Amino acid sequence: MTTIADPSAETDPTALHAIIDALAASAPRMADSAPRDRARALRAVAEALDASVDELITLAHDETGLHLPRLTGEVARTTGQLRLFASELEDGSWLDVIIDTPDPHAQPMPRPDLRRMQVAVGPVVVFAASNFPFAFSVAGGDTASALAAGSPVVLKAHPGHPATSRRTAEIVTEAWEAAGMPAGSFALVEGEQTGVAVVRHPSIAAGAFTGSERGGTALARIAADREVPIPFYAEMGSLNPVFVTPGALAARGDAIADGYVGSFTLGVGQFCTKPGLLFVPRGHGLDERLAAAVRDVAPARMLGSRIASASRQGQAALANVPGSRTIAAVAPDADSGLLGGALLVATDLETLLEHRDALLSECFGPTSVVIEYDGFEEALEAAAALSGTLTATIHAEDHEAAALAPLARLLRDRAGRLVWNGWPTGVAVSRAMHHGGPFPATTHAAHTSVGATAIRRFLRSVVYQDYPAALLPAALQDSNPLGLLRRIDGEFTRRPA
Amino acid sequence: MTTIADPSAETDPTALHAIIDALAASAPRMADSAPRDRARALRAVAEALDASVDELITLAHDETGLHLPRLTGEVARTTGQLRLFASELEDGSWLDVIIDTPDPHAQPMPRPDLRRMQVAVGPVVVFAASNFPFAFSVAGGDTASALAAGSPVVLKAHPGHPATSRRTAEIVTEAWEAAGMPAGSFALVEGEQTGVAVVRHPSIAAGAFTGSERGGTALARIAADREVPIPFYAEMGSLNPVFVTPGALAARGDAIADGYVGSFTLGVGQFCTKPGLLFVPRGHGLDERLAAAVRDVAPARMLGSRIASASRQGQAALANVPGSRTIAAVAPDADSGLLGGALLVATDLETLLEHRDALLSECFGPTSVVIEYDGFEEALEAAAALSGTLTATIHAEDHEAAALAPLARLLRDRAGRLVWNGWPTGVAVSRAMHHGGPFPATTHAAHTSVGATAIRRFLRSVVYQDYPAALLPAALQDSNPLGLLRRIDGEFTRRPA
Repeated sequence: MTTIADPSAETDPTALHAIIDALAASAPRMADSAPRDRARALRAVAEALDASVDELITLAHDETGLHLPRLTGEVARTTGQLRLFASELEDGSWLDVIIDTPDPHAQPMPRPDLRRMQVAVGPVVVFAASNFPFAFSVAGGDTASALAAGSPVVLKAHPGHPATSRRTAEIVTEAWEAAGMPAGSFALVEGEQTGVAVVRHPSIAAGAFTGSERGGTALARIAADREVPIPFYAEMGSLNPVFVTPGALAARGDAIADGYVGSFTLGVGQFCTKPGLLFVPRGHGLDERLAAAVRDVAPARMLGSRIASASRQGQAALANVPGSRTIAAVAPDADSGLLGGALLVATDLETLLEHRDALLSECFGPTSVVIEYDGFEEALEAAAALSGTLTATIHAEDHEAAALAPLARLLRDRAGRLVWNGWPTGVAVSRAMHHGGPFPATTHAAHTSVGATAIRRFLRSVVYQDYPAALLPAALQDSNPLGLLRRIDGEFTRRPA
Repeated sequence: MTTIADPSAETDPTALHAIIDALAASAPRMADSAPRDRARALRAVAEALDASVDELITLAHDETGLHLPRLTGEVARTTGQLRLFASELEDGSWLDVIIDTPDPHAQPMPRPDLRRMQVAVGPVVVFAASNFPFAFSVAGGDTASALAAGSPVVLKAHPGHPATSRRTAEIVTEAWEAAGMPAGSFALVEGEQTGVAVVRHPSIAAGAFTGSERGGTALARIAADREVPIPFYAEMGSLNPVFVTPGALAARGDAIADGYVGSFTLGVGQFCTKPGLLFVPRGHGLDERLAAAVRDVAPARMLGSRIASASRQGQAALANVPGSRTIAAVAPDADSGLLGGALLVATDLETLLEHRDALLSECFGPTSVVIEYDGFEEALEAAAALSGTLTATIHAEDHEAAALAPLARLLRDRAGRLVWNGWPTGVAVSRAMHHGGPFPATTHAAHTSVGATAIRRFLRSVVYQDYPAALLPAALQDSNPLGLLRRIDGEFTRRPA
């Protein structure tokens, strides 16, 4: 059924050594390359991927079972992402230039000329995800933002789609280097042990990861325990709670039920933004509608047999929580280890709080839990019990908004993205997007792995004090040759310094 | 000689419990307080400290031995710092507002309304330093930037100046709460075990530290090993290398020698920006001048007996490195355990590389090493051998600048601040300042502990998707009531959204 070939392959240690040496050797040239040249190279990569879309989606469909239209859209998202970083490089605001002119009268001491900017952090290891073979994989957002920053990338492929990964890497490497970027500044490696070895390698300056809480946390600890610790940006598990108010229930309960089932079963529930919890007022009367919608979703192939097996185990655990009941369960054909059928379970707040470990753990796959709450105070109590999450959603009528401030406030402390009358699946790639959140959603709540500001993870600050013009980078020169918006003595301006 | 009373005091565990509970309880109100209110409260703290300057510097002089004029300047720096954050709060650019308006035609999917800003990270623990009883202590930059961010602060006092710490904390708490800020949102704790317990406490969301590499690294590992890991921003050891070119040596060798000795013995060498290494061309002929300048520096009281003892041990180790020679050593009166006398040692690059452990370790105190290099290639080799450092300095003539690009480039990868024809001691508190650097200078090279952007350590991102006006924070509202410069659809503007 699938051509997953050698998913446990490990990059040969000698080859790995050469790859990391080349990566490290390329770092100064990468960091010194002009942003406009990196922009051109990112666009060349996007064009090359677009030109190979048919070949790529065929490989990915074979390895992951994801539908061709979805994969076509994902390639478009991936190349759109590369182009977004290209235009950000040209905009230049990511350089974050701050200039303080000298002040000989400053107290308690004179102030020198200070010019600060962002520079590339150095070689980055990126761990690809299973569930997005393009957008969070070889040429995905982590790779795009690190390359945009001027940091070389070693990409640890996900074993779920090795052939897609290898072919994508060939296309990226060829287009990137043909566009004039340093040889060896992008490379692919494979294997779990190899990934750990790369995180431990002294030449690596930062890491990024999309995947499970267990995997991300383990790698982040390895990064922190190095002789020279490095930042490790892991985007991990998330419950993505959705709260439905009495007003929304009354006005459009059926549509909410349909939208919810559509969202938690989308892509066989294999999104990190899948809504895992729906809080609805007690006596909602949606059981039949929800059950019918769930039964309309045919079992579908999941990304791999391990993921499908873990999904079924998670479903069994949920269905067996005392005090929970099954709204609908779609049993897949028992003969296929890859199929996932939807499960929707219901319970109340008391049971949720009593069985936190079972009910407040992410169950990757087409599974979700409806929690019936009794009054606004219980909704607040439920929100307060949640851990960090990528998203938190409210479905409400506009006239209820002001009264929901306490709920929105509790959710803000727990989530990276707050959604109103929408569904968390579907993450726009844009300048304002924040795809992050407090632990365990990510290891660094300040940062995002989607959107233009993802570049900030791979930058560090440096300030030049009284430096001569001959040694100042273009971004800091008096004449402002890059035309940047710079903060000079507190004022944002494009004028010369 | 000194009134250091009970430096090993530990905050009572019951009291600690209450302190952390009050801190956590204050966090939502702190985060929701208007930036202009926090600005007013920070200014009130600054005024209260200024009004108590005589009392404070008397206490600090008694406990640390630092001179009264230096301490007066340090209080001014501390209150100037509080006022800088107050004006930053009013400016509002730290809110980093990014708005993408909806685009129903966006591909591969329609784009919702997205409005992103920065919010407080939550309760912060700050570890005070020994060497700045005001500017890096109770009311120092870490405290000021965390409070500015809207994050409550529990301050772990340094045992070197407990009375100063307690009195400062009383003044801060009183002024801060009298200005309307939440009770319990600033508190002082004492003791090493207490500090560790606070880092491990689940209510704490981030940590900041100024001190030794050993202490900072250990606490950062504890923070990373928590069940919920938190960022820990440690500013630690630094060698602060200075390179002198042949041109600068010829033009002003004597002035450089005098400036160097002044910088490395300033404050008995107890600055994290003390120049620990001076690279000069072989045959420099400065020995006599350097020796005379060192001998002019009388032994002086160090911050504490442990620091003085460690300083003497470090000096003995340096003086005994085979292949090094002593340019000048000033022996302190053997009867006082607190006095530190200056030591200047010289060696060559070969010895430096052979005895890295001894010669490339920070020796806190009035100690430095002159390394004679033979030609520009050796200077580059030396720079390449350096680890992360807060600062790196070049003394050169302007006509040499362009040729020094390879040296400046190597130093940029290793330092947070690049100084030209100055001395690294003396860190201006301003918007552009970056007081940070790659490990072991700090644990997070992207961040600074001095200057306006220090606030970024205590913020996290959140994005509102399609949110109703009634629930949007002021910073994100259409009408832009705070008058912020916001990035809307890629353009920086103060217009409404």
